[in-house]
Amino acid sequence: MNLINKVNSPRDLKRLKIEQLTPLAEEIRKLILTTVSQTGGHLASNLGVVELAIALHYCLSSPQDKIVWDVGHQCYPHKILTGRAAEFNTLRKYEGLSGYIKSSESPHDSFDVGHSSTSLSAALGMAIGRDLQGSSSKVAAVIGDGSLTSGLALEGLNNIGRSDTDIMVFLNDNQMSISENVGALSRYLNDLRSAPSYISAKRDAKRFLGGIPFAGRFTRNFIEKTKNQLKYLLLPGVLFQELGFKYYGPVDGHDLEQLISVVRNVKNISGPVLVHVITKKGKGYSLAQKYPHKFHGVEPFDIKTGRAKIAKSEPTFTDVFSKKIVDLARENEKIVAITASMPDGCGLSDFKKHFPERFFDVGIAESHATTFAAGLAKTGMKPIICIYSTFLQRSYDQILHDVCIQKLPVVLAIDRAGVVPADGETHQGVFDLSYLSHIPNLTILAPRDGAELDGMLDWAFVHDGPVAIRYPKAIASSPYSCDISPIEYGKSETLVSGEHMALVAVGSMLSTISDVAQELERKGITPTVTVINPRFIKPLDTKMITDLHKYDHIFTFEENVYNGGFGQALRYAMGGKMVHSFAVGDEFLPTATREELLALSGLDTKSIINKILETIGDGKTP
Amino acid sequence: MNLINKVNSPRDLKRLKIEQLTPLAEEIRKLILTTVSQTGGHLASNLGVVELAIALHYCLSSPQDKIVWDVGHQCYPHKILTGRAAEFNTLRKYEGLSGYIKSSESPHDSFDVGHSSTSLSAALGMAIGRDLQGSSSKVAAVIGDGSLTSGLALEGLNNIGRSDTDIMVFLNDNQMSISENVGALSRYLNDLRSAPSYISAKRDAKRFLGGIPFAGRFTRNFIEKTKNQLKYLLLPGVLFQELGFKYYGPVDGHDLEQLISVVRNVKNISGPVLVHVITKKGKGYSLAQKYPHKFHGVEPFDIKTGRAKIAKSEPTFTDVFSKKIVDLARENEKIVAITASMPDGCGLSDFKKHFPERFFDVGIAESHATTFAAGLAKTGMKPIICIYSTFLQRSYDQILHDVCIQKLPVVLAIDRAGVVPADGETHQGVFDLSYLSHIPNLTILAPRDGAELDGMLDWAFVHDGPVAIRYPKAIASSPYSCDISPIEYGKSETLVSGEHMALVAVGSMLSTISDVAQELERKGITPTVTVINPRFIKPLDTKMITDLHKYDHIFTFEENVYNGGFGQALRYAMGGKMVHSFAVGDEFLPTATREELLALSGLDTKSIINKILETIGDGKTP
Repeated sequence: MNLINKVNSPRDLKRLKIEQLTPLAEEIRKLILTTVSQTGGHLASNLGVVELAIALHYCLSSPQDKIVWDVGHQCYPHKILTGRAAEFNTLRKYEGLSGYIKSSESPHDSFDVGHSSTSLSAALGMAIGRDLQGSSSKVAAVIGDGSLTSGLALEGLNNIGRSDTDIMVFLNDNQMSISENVGALSRYLNDLRSAPSYISAKRDAKRFLGGIPFAGRFTRNFIEKTKNQLKYLLLPGVLFQELGFKYYGPVDGHDLEQLISVVRNVKNISGPVLVHVITKKGKGYSLAQKYPHKFHGVEPFDIKTGRAKIAKSEPTFTDVFSKKIVDLARENEKIVAITASMPDGCGLSDFKKHFPERFFDVGIAESHATTFAAGLAKTGMKPIICIYSTFLQRSYDQILHDVCIQKLPVVLAIDRAGVVPADGETHQGVFDLSYLSHIPNLTILAPRDGAELDGMLDWAFVHDGPVAIRYPKAIASSPYSCDISPIEYGKSETLVSGEHMALVAVGSMLSTISDVAQELERKGITPTVTVINPRFIKPLDTKMITDLHKYDHIFTFEENVYNGGFGQALRYAMGGKMVHSFAVGDEFLPTATREELLALSGLDTKSIINKILETIGDGKTP
Repeated sequence: MNLINKVNSPRDLKRLKIEQLTPLAEEIRKLILTTVSQTGGHLASNLGVVELAIALHYCLSSPQDKIVWDVGHQCYPHKILTGRAAEFNTLRKYEGLSGYIKSSESPHDSFDVGHSSTSLSAALGMAIGRDLQGSSSKVAAVIGDGSLTSGLALEGLNNIGRSDTDIMVFLNDNQMSISENVGALSRYLNDLRSAPSYISAKRDAKRFLGGIPFAGRFTRNFIEKTKNQLKYLLLPGVLFQELGFKYYGPVDGHDLEQLISVVRNVKNISGPVLVHVITKKGKGYSLAQKYPHKFHGVEPFDIKTGRAKIAKSEPTFTDVFSKKIVDLARENEKIVAITASMPDGCGLSDFKKHFPERFFDVGIAESHATTFAAGLAKTGMKPIICIYSTFLQRSYDQILHDVCIQKLPVVLAIDRAGVVPADGETHQGVFDLSYLSHIPNLTILAPRDGAELDGMLDWAFVHDGPVAIRYPKAIASSPYSCDISPIEYGKSETLVSGEHMALVAVGSMLSTISDVAQELERKGITPTVTVINPRFIKPLDTKMITDLHKYDHIFTFEENVYNGGFGQALRYAMGGKMVHSFAVGDEFLPTATREELLALSGLDTKSIINKILETIGDGKTP
């Protein structure tokens, strides 16, 4: 770490000679690999952009110049180069380094991000803001080829192209397998296009377009090589030129000299510029290069074997879902599954294998996924959208306008609902009850464990209308894993019957509430605790509401914010009856483990017991 | 109306001879013009697609074949052709014909719509559903060139292109001014490409691409003629071919023979097909042809002069906003205004005129608008996004993830918040309090009248953080239009002081509540009514909450649904104290006038008084 230790800022980086940069890149790769093998995190994508991050910081002057990273899956080299190497081992831990771009962490983090495809729109805003204030700083956005499948990125691209502002877009294209032949051509094209003399001669748009016939041949070869239609846009840049960009590339994203030469050239070109950078996901770590998908996001692993260090214990909700959806699809051929670029994370790998013709990965296009599902449902199919709670936020309008107005039987399988470990503010799933509960015609359920998720999925595909089922990133067992009574529309389940106090807990919170109830009994304080699993967050069980009136104290628990959540709806439904709620506070939750996040929100056993005792009066049976 | 009377279904239409279709088109135009001049509605766009609607229904067999219209701004000819001519005069009235596509109205309305850019994704869902169920029906989506600026449409386009399914996309391109020369070329290209013999010969992709050099020349001429960069995608179809479509066009959208010939040809072509149809907005009505923007959406008007029949009376909230934002921008050069294709509707026409360099119309790209604003705010600018409540739904994730996590000072000016007349289920602004109130760091205000909107805008640009101000499509006066006390963060305003009963009404509801309070006093029932204007929906005024505890009865009023709304939040904040709320029910509101919608929701004076009397006990002072 000889060179890394010398680089505490981009200013230090600029002091290095070009020939020192390749060894620096190796050190950065080693640090990333070693750290992520211990902390978990995004590996393959970060290994792929080491040289790009070096070149950008070597040629630009952050933080005056703005480098806008997309998603944050490629921000580790940037973090290491901007003074955060020493604390890199705190990655994704509570009060440690975020795994994403976070402006409160460093002035070099120009725009907070965690969701995909925001960098173009954000960078355009920064460029226009700069222009209006008469500054001359540079603005560079980095975006991956996958991120370009999102509507937000395409809207951004369209608006940059017509803007006439000075802005550089670095397209980090890491999925293309480039043959030697193409590689040579790319170098040729690049040399040709990024040399300053050529650029000035080419200011004439017609001359630019003169390059097309040559490119045309290239395109034709390329079309046969890839399935992603958007890729056609990338080569040979005709499209980007037509969209208003000056196009440079493809550039070898691991050739530092070439990269630096391009960045130095393009940063002085006026108007929108697109540099097409070819990178290799997992570069420098053979296992990640070979299996880039497997090593995209990882748990701690053994570098030698690539195997996860912690053997998996009990099945998670995702595991249960994964198995069940295959069983259901076997019985019901109307079932089709849709994912927005997350087949593995959402547990659809097996489904994809068994029913390829009924599996749809639409790219990072959550809005399309939902309207597409609505169209399928119109024909009598039974679509299920498998998605993380935080990414479903991009479907809010489509759920309301395209699915729920028409009462279409679309199932939303909302994974990562509730607190989400390690990913921080941008990935918490604590808003879905609030952004869904007020939509007419939508039914919302939350299972307490895997067995109930199983039953709820059975029910969802029979119900004639839109259904959302939300479950957390957690193991799927609960202390109540007895026989599951059948799911009935709008009916809750009473797990423990008492007289004086009712604990009503949404889904996964019931594990904690089991501990709470036992602990309260152990203290001899409240011998008669009722524990209720509402099952349906919407509609609320009307009988449950009536029955609740008899309790002296009612408490609700949920992995969701207070506003618009379950507790608020229940208190509202109970009229003047007091209901005490436990939920996530009105602020964004930071990076931490699941246990830490629950404790931070007062949703751990100890906090809950203390608050209950405080409410009912310590030491007395209510 | 000789021919229209004969056409009660697409089946009837097919019985007509081709030469009868042009006179039919004229009758339809006449009916649309006459009706809309009386009812108001979308005029220019509907006049532009008369021939396209005829051709589609003449060649396809709805409802077995699916015609998927986008937005609904072009659905009137379709409605007239599918048995709804006789009731066309009920357009946009309560229990009359919807101004948009609505499947509960007719089996020919294949997919409900009101928001833009959904047709591609929905149609793809229908095509895949058809394929999986082994049907052979046709699926045709119609989409306007403006709608293609939306990310949802671009996601849909990308996914159709790679799908290999049989699907027709009719691109209704109504903004392009085509010279004679280009028109001749378009006809040539069309004849060449849509003849079956040519098509079969062209199945070979390489041959298709052989057309490029010719097209290249065409593109070059075209680039100089238009500013909208996406237009470059349209001609000569190279891009669509690269995206996986077979491209046909441009076709003259007012030449019925040509249109019918094309539809007949393309409906038997396999795979995704894009037909590029050139239409003229306002076709057949000279004033609308000349001023297509002015005649896009209209109030009742005089056909001869084009002038609105009802002279405008008092200024609306939009009028007040329109004037104020210009004043503010004059004082503060950091202010920039952003609209997603609605400069007129949102009251930005004057701003645009005075500050063209600080005005940004980003197209129908609400998601981009918000992230773009976040980028601008990062540089110290003061962006305001001017948008309708219902369209802001498409920015939900961007508000949360890009604006609020970073606490960026972006102002959301939310017009058409509350009940929205004439447009029906898809356009109600009754969800914004619910989808915004739970987002941390966001401040939400609602003004009671124009004077307060003025003050709130002053405040919003001083506040260091995201602010949303919501106001309805209504006149901006209130009975309380006295001097406005300055807006203070989180402080409510007491308008009338009483002792026994508190009426807390959000923004525009205060006009009604003034009537209610007076009527109650007149009845001699409750001489001591307090009327409170909360001003801040979030955060709630803590002093107000404390003070409210002293009242025997508390009532809240809002033009928003109950779930996640103001009343629910207030009841929650009041603990065990009973709060009675008046809000919009948990169902989608239909097409009606503002007064009818408020009455349907129990938010009119009479309903409110009856409910209050019922609650407090009729005839007794509480």
